[in-house]
Amino acid sequence: MRVLIVLAHPERTSFNGALTRAAVEALEAAGHEAEVSDLYAEGFGAAAGRGDFAAAADPLRFHYQAEQGHAAETGGFAPEIAREQARVRAADLLVLQFPLWWGAPPALLKGWFERVMAYGFAYVDGRRFDTGLFRGRRALMSVTTGGTPGRFSDGDVYGPIESVLYPVRRLALEYMGYEVDDPFVAYAAPRIGAEERAACIAAWQARIVAAADAARRIEIADPLAALAEVGAGAWSRA
Amino acid sequence: MRVLIVLAHPERTSFNGALTRAAVEALEAAGHEAEVSDLYAEGFGAAAGRGDFAAAADPLRFHYQAEQGHAAETGGFAPEIAREQARVRAADLLVLQFPLWWGAPPALLKGWFERVMAYGFAYVDGRRFDTGLFRGRRALMSVTTGGTPGRFSDGDVYGPIESVLYPVRRLALEYMGYEVDDPFVAYAAPRIGAEERAACIAAWQARIVAAADAARRIEIADPLAALAEVGAGAWSRA
Repeated sequence: MRVLIVLAHPERTSFNGALTRAAVEALEAAGHEAEVSDLYAEGFGAAAGRGDFAAAADPLRFHYQAEQGHAAETGGFAPEIAREQARVRAADLLVLQFPLWWGAPPALLKGWFERVMAYGFAYVDGRRFDTGLFRGRRALMSVTTGGTPGRFSDGDVYGPIESVLYPVRRLALEYMGYEVDDPFVAYAAPRIGAEERAACIAAWQARIVAAADAARRIEIADPLAALAEVGAGAWSRA
Repeated sequence: MRVLIVLAHPERTSFNGALTRAAVEALEAAGHEAEVSDLYAEGFGAAAGRGDFAAAADPLRFHYQAEQGHAAETGGFAPEIAREQARVRAADLLVLQFPLWWGAPPALLKGWFERVMAYGFAYVDGRRFDTGLFRGRRALMSVTTGGTPGRFSDGDVYGPIESVLYPVRRLALEYMGYEVDDPFVAYAAPRIGAEERAACIAAWQARIVAAADAARRIEIADPLAALAEVGAGAWSRA
């Protein structure tokens, strides 16, 4: 199967970097294909803006979803967005690799969702969750935290990791139709020693290979057909 | 009292823009002071990077928290970060005004947290929640959604707005010590008519003025003293 790992960490020698390289190695050894979107290294832009589109649907008032729908219909996405969309389209398994900063993915990964997972590409009005465009595709989060597992236990200060990752899982990945595996979490990443790191990396390799094995090649829904069905300007009702 | 509204919406004629202008008007009419950080209009950068600092603590390996601690000790934050930190320091009430995109604040606002709410400025190791540096300060989120209130009800597709906003409230604002009011939510913002919008704006004006009235002027903890207490390099244990 084909796996896209979206990596959001500014330092390549970080534990996130190590997990990513180990994942690619394990996937390829198991006969899968792996591609990495290294958002910081590739200089991916985080801010949604006019520059995301070749032409403006409405030059007077900037409505991001409307511009996305227009770009989807006209092939007018900026090159770095079109490149990421091609990677997403080709991926049987989508993996998000990130450190938990302020209880959420880094801004660059959030911006990747906003710009790449565009209206008319990743969703259209009325097609979400069970009828989402990526229905049947699989997704998996791999997260490093500063906090110990204890801090993320029920009743402790941060609460369960499921509650922390709920918005990403439910309102982003599942919204688009992805079947989302339980997250792989490397707790207290800065505090663990070399032996624990090695064990963690091996566990991650096993997890990502199992997820790739479980993925199937699914023809995703044609977003333009879906867009035509709901009619132009449907975003304004969304 | 002094209120900082951090606005994260790319279009000034948006409902988020209207809510912000109405809030400033109401606050000033009630004798409060209001300042707006308009992240898109001011071209605030979302991506944490080397450019955030005047000098590098470690030129070989980029550890963001370590660089933040170093910048806090040496006054080495980039000008746009130092400006935002001064605004935060001066604000008795911090208001976040944003549209809910993919179940979370826009990337630009996430980036504002990552870059402005720096280690050594907004938190240090061992000082969080009840002992957070901003203990006693108040914060309030004002959120617009595309989805109707029904979609955010218990058991419906998105789940309660409290669950959606949990990471921002708990792992960001409360983490720093802020007392966080229940969010003001303008549901289904793109679907409501002019009369409902006017009612919503009036309700928001009442809410933000009440929050400013309830705020007190609190001397916040000195982050450098707190940093000195935990010792240099404490980030590496965090």
